[in-house]
Amino acid sequence: MGLKEMFHLARVPSILMLGLVYMTYVLIGGVVFWKLEGDLGEKDISVLLQNKKNLLMTYPCLNQEGLDAVVLTAASKAGLSFKNNYTKSGFWKYTSSAVFAATVVTTIGYGNLCPTTSAGQIFCVFFALFGIPLNVVVLNRVGKYILKHLSYTFTWEKYSLEHDNMSAPFHILLQKFLFFIVPMIVFQLQEGWTYSQALYYCFITLSTIGFGDFVAGTSYNPDKMYPDWYSVLMASWIFFGLAWLALIINHSIDILEQLNSHLKRRRQKQEEE
Amino acid sequence: MGLKEMFHLARVPSILMLGLVYMTYVLIGGVVFWKLEGDLGEKDISVLLQNKKNLLMTYPCLNQEGLDAVVLTAASKAGLSFKNNYTKSGFWKYTSSAVFAATVVTTIGYGNLCPTTSAGQIFCVFFALFGIPLNVVVLNRVGKYILKHLSYTFTWEKYSLEHDNMSAPFHILLQKFLFFIVPMIVFQLQEGWTYSQALYYCFITLSTIGFGDFVAGTSYNPDKMYPDWYSVLMASWIFFGLAWLALIINHSIDILEQLNSHLKRRRQKQEEE
Ligand SMILES: [K+]
Ligand SMILES: [K+]
Repeated sequence: MGLKEMFHLARVPSILMLGLVYMTYVLIGGVVFWKLEGDLGEKDISVLLQNKKNLLMTYPCLNQEGLDAVVLTAASKAGLSFKNNYTKSGFWKYTSSAVFAATVVTTIGYGNLCPTTSAGQIFCVFFALFGIPLNVVVLNRVGKYILKHLSYTFTWEKYSLEHDNMSAPFHILLQKFLFFIVPMIVFQLQEGWTYSQALYYCFITLSTIGFGDFVAGTSYNPDKMYPDWYSVLMASWIFFGLAWLALIINHSIDILEQLNSHLKRRRQKQEEE
Repeated sequence: MGLKEMFHLARVPSILMLGLVYMTYVLIGGVVFWKLEGDLGEKDISVLLQNKKNLLMTYPCLNQEGLDAVVLTAASKAGLSFKNNYTKSGFWKYTSSAVFAATVVTTIGYGNLCPTTSAGQIFCVFFALFGIPLNVVVLNRVGKYILKHLSYTFTWEKYSLEHDNMSAPFHILLQKFLFFIVPMIVFQLQEGWTYSQALYYCFITLSTIGFGDFVAGTSYNPDKMYPDWYSVLMASWIFFGLAWLALIINHSIDILEQLNSHLKRRRQKQEEE
């Protein structure tokens, strides 16, 4: 007797089965990340310990306490360089504040800049409370507009309506890779990332996960100059990319829910027989 | 002649007006953040420069180059303490990997842990590609379940259907503050945050922005021990909180879209007259 039949006999509500699938998915993901990253963590630590030893040898007056003090001072403000000729320009200047506001309403939230004052934090809460729904409405509208006015997408939509099958989402998935390739090349050239890092950055941004480990336009290198068109291109890419992805995610959800109700109907039919 | 009439006369498409509202909202937000945080940034810099001066005086062998080297070594791995008795336990252990997987599928993405290997990054992309839609489906189902089975919420839903007005969302907003107050007190006690910081953390987490400046359960203090029920409570809070918020956000979007179509209808009526 398979697991499926056992569940069927026990009449487990479908919401519990869905919950079980979800839990299993997350826990298996946890195991994979642990295996993939845990080993590297160990290697990193040995490299770090070696670097620390070298530092202590180069600067003999520095003890463990001194190291901790330096690190604590530097860590007190993320993104704040310890460089001698530090100017305020790299921090909460106006353009970066506008970018920050955009990462709030899109819920990307890279976190390379965060409000630290109570007033800033409370404002952030209310700003997001109205900004996030507004952002969703705008992106949905833009997504529908793209769907209506771009002939290629329109053809796909007609195709999907006529051939109610699974190939349509794969079609759009292919389209999506095209939407990823141009930014990937641009980021690889501008930021000096590898292709896999650039792909990872594109996905983490457009999925609104936004870890903030890679953020385009915020190189640690102070000599790095970005061209003028770079920020405009990035903003457009994020905006239209999110609208595009909203379309695709809605499609994926529809498919999952159709699959779910299909399975439900089949089970009901089996029960009636 | 007001701005509204001008737009009306010029027959600007409503999508452009919506885009204008959106842009204005984000840009004004940017100005407020800049004003609120920019001043503090300046104060922070003077404190940092003073701390740096003190460090250089305490450890005379350390020059600018040495400071940079120490900071660079420490920054090479975020969250990796420079402590002498460092063990691997604080890093990619299994429980934190599972929490990481959960922050990926919910798109919270705190970023206090990030995959650094190419394999981990590519797996993360595919893990999220299927995990995010699954998460949305599960949360929607749980949200509907709550709405159906909790009598209080059910009463509210009936109320909102009978009295099709604006007071229902305010009602649920009040309910929501209740949902925020218990976690706020718990975080304030357990993490030692102020109430405004705890509220900020609750909102930034449940809105899935997830800056990662505050993350419950990851105190920098190595002596901090969390009680056993803490992680279970946190996971349940995030899960049910997200389901709850999905309900509210869907309601807000409905209201905004109703408002939009109402304005559109009124304009069409005016044009016909
Ligand atoms: K996020
Ligand atoms: K984030």
